[in-house]
Amino acid sequence: MAVVTFPRPLQKLIRELSKLPTVGEKTATRLAYHLVQNDPALVDTLARALHEAKEGISFCQRCFFFAEDDECTICQDHSRDRSVVCVLEKPMDLISIERMGEYKGIYHILHGLWAPLRGKGPESMKLQELVDRVKEGEISEVILATSATVEGDATALYIARTLEELGVSTTRLAQGMPKGGELEYADEVTLSKAFSGRNRLSA
Amino acid sequence: MAVVTFPRPLQKLIRELSKLPTVGEKTATRLAYHLVQNDPALVDTLARALHEAKEGISFCQRCFFFAEDDECTICQDHSRDRSVVCVLEKPMDLISIERMGEYKGIYHILHGLWAPLRGKGPESMKLQELVDRVKEGEISEVILATSATVEGDATALYIARTLEELGVSTTRLAQGMPKGGELEYADEVTLSKAFSGRNRLSA
Repeated sequence: MAVVTFPRPLQKLIRELSKLPTVGEKTATRLAYHLVQNDPALVDTLARALHEAKEGISFCQRCFFFAEDDECTICQDHSRDRSVVCVLEKPMDLISIERMGEYKGIYHILHGLWAPLRGKGPESMKLQELVDRVKEGEISEVILATSATVEGDATALYIARTLEELGVSTTRLAQGMPKGGELEYADEVTLSKAFSGRNRLSA
Repeated sequence: MAVVTFPRPLQKLIRELSKLPTVGEKTATRLAYHLVQNDPALVDTLARALHEAKEGISFCQRCFFFAEDDECTICQDHSRDRSVVCVLEKPMDLISIERMGEYKGIYHILHGLWAPLRGKGPESMKLQELVDRVKEGEISEVILATSATVEGDATALYIARTLEELGVSTTRLAQGMPKGGELEYADEVTLSKAFSGRNRLSA
């Protein structure tokens, strides 16, 4: 008796879906079944959205955030402070900082991190482009706002060293206790950062 | 200062992706970024796979498993026992049973469960089609193999009652301790099922 499998078009859809990050074969199968069985209209709109996203989205020539023109809306906005650049790993991080609503400078998206253990060298991020921007002379401070992870810390240090000779100030986001964080549940690294970065209270 | 958002084609892709089950806005954003930034080739193959799946897959007119023709490969296979029908919630469940390799009968896929609390009545599953198949007279046993969940149990009971008058034998998969399950960690319902379903050991 032959082994029973899904029809080939469904197998292919499952294979393609499981190439997505965080989607394993089980999830891909569930998604494919949902698309084929419950929601044939979604198949069309999703295929069209994929196509339009591929055609309609490019990256800002200056900061590498998403852009529909050559430059993104932030780089085009002349009310922003062009002397401060906030360096981020990926575009989503920019949305988080904009949501905070306090930062008025501009950005630089690396689209990657320095992660030698994963075979990602400095060329796997938009670092040379940052160096070129700093060399133009308008920038006085580079805020290294990569995540507070091992790779994020290593990348920040690597970039700080790369920019050392260029006479620009490099800063790193503070690390410590998160708002609402209980001491009992804080890990040692967070506590250590919170201790070493402690501030004097003005009484 | 205007709120910074993603370009519209990306927003649309995120919106479409987040219509998928188990995909929230965060996951959809991560998937969309992956597709747009890291893997433009996947965009094309995924869009094509979606289209082909929509066009190339239909359901077996008899058992409602996936089929590329009018009938699926199982219903076309004349070596299978047509007097036993195994009733399942969804096509993936069939693959699990075929993998076990012991079942030689045919199937009936409900594509749903009886779940009044979620507004799903008997018309939301392929029950009338099962009744029609039983009425044809070839079937002697209906194995109700819906999941051992509240909805799966309720559906099995509902179907058993519906088929009661038709002179067909209805059975339910055994419930009890899973292989390798430790008594210490078994929940009360599983234990209760294991007790009430206990078998005599032939010494």
